[in-house]
Amino acid sequence: MDKRHFHQELSELNKEILKLGGMVEESISRSIESLKKRDIQLAKKVINSDEVIDKLELEIDERCINLLALYQPMAIDLRFITTALMITTDLERIADLAVDISERTIELADKPLLKPLIDVPKLASLAQKMVRESLEAFVNRNAELAMSVCKYDDEADHLRDMVCEEIVEIVKKDGTTAPRAIPLLLVARHLERICDHATNIAEDVVYMVEAQMLKHHPRE
Amino acid sequence: MDKRHFHQELSELNKEILKLGGMVEESISRSIESLKKRDIQLAKKVINSDEVIDKLELEIDERCINLLALYQPMAIDLRFITTALMITTDLERIADLAVDISERTIELADKPLLKPLIDVPKLASLAQKMVRESLEAFVNRNAELAMSVCKYDDEADHLRDMVCEEIVEIVKKDGTTAPRAIPLLLVARHLERICDHATNIAEDVVYMVEAQMLKHHPRE
Repeated sequence: MDKRHFHQELSELNKEILKLGGMVEESISRSIESLKKRDIQLAKKVINSDEVIDKLELEIDERCINLLALYQPMAIDLRFITTALMITTDLERIADLAVDISERTIELADKPLLKPLIDVPKLASLAQKMVRESLEAFVNRNAELAMSVCKYDDEADHLRDMVCEEIVEIVKKDGTTAPRAIPLLLVARHLERICDHATNIAEDVVYMVEAQMLKHHPRE
Repeated sequence: MDKRHFHQELSELNKEILKLGGMVEESISRSIESLKKRDIQLAKKVINSDEVIDKLELEIDERCINLLALYQPMAIDLRFITTALMITTDLERIADLAVDISERTIELADKPLLKPLIDVPKLASLAQKMVRESLEAFVNRNAELAMSVCKYDDEADHLRDMVCEEIVEIVKKDGTTAPRAIPLLLVARHLERICDHATNIAEDVVYMVEAQMLKHHPRE
């Protein structure tokens, strides 16, 4: 195997994954921005950009499969590429959830806001941070950073529960708020699911790094 | 490469994936059974079995990585294994959604049923059928069957929309139904998301078979 070429290809793969990650992060932030500003045009932008993201995901998968076929890598390099294949799936699903949020924005755009958005943007920032750091952990093969991402997951659950409980209370008092309340409740759930996918990415990174450590330093 | 051994290993991989698929299907049917019968014990069984499913998924992933390392397969065999890696991720997420449904069952168990469950079990049957057929398409490398699975996705969306619209109408008339209504609405969404994952599996199968066909019979 031509090591120099292979490492050049791996660094290209890293770049492409970070590019995909950046696009996904932008979709999340735009979807929340569209919700806050009730901006249907921006929501539609998120929905339309999904196709580009899907295409880039397929390209990265192809790149991974070609790397496997051409260089037949072993050990950590093999595991890095198979992990990349799993991670792109999560990234693509995250982009789908940003589309889901944007669809809620469109449903809500012609209705008065149920309540000021406080915890929802907080949850969105957490989701973006988790996506960013889990990918950083992947490209740098940093298990410690990956483990710190996993720890945020409880905070995400807590924020989602707070939003959902508050919304159910509002609807209980006035059922006619349901068409405005339920999409907002779903947004909180979509965001929490983004955090779940970021946690999956982080867990895959921990597993990738540690499986390799176990192979190099097997337990007695 | 020892072809005989390799094909024996591939057939083992097929068996394991079908086993995982069977477990996931059982989780879906049990989660809906628990909802219909308001059976908390059964719901807890689904939640507890998730660990076994996660473990089997990791084992299959390991098996795939070992196959890549040991046999360095090419062409359709390489693509079959990388597709297996992506598919197990979807199966594991489907099992998580069955857990989500079971959690809704537990939330609803002490409250009177909002309405008779008609469309929800229908959606559940569709979800199971889609999971089963998408895996059948994978192990038999059958692009035609995979394409027929993709076509069910609209039906799933339609069933979910019907359930959700009906529930929103009930809540609009009486807000105090919200704590019983919203978990049921989420069940419909969880089920539709299972159908999405089955569609993803089916799309991966189409892509796997066709990418190979394109390589063998490149377009002019």
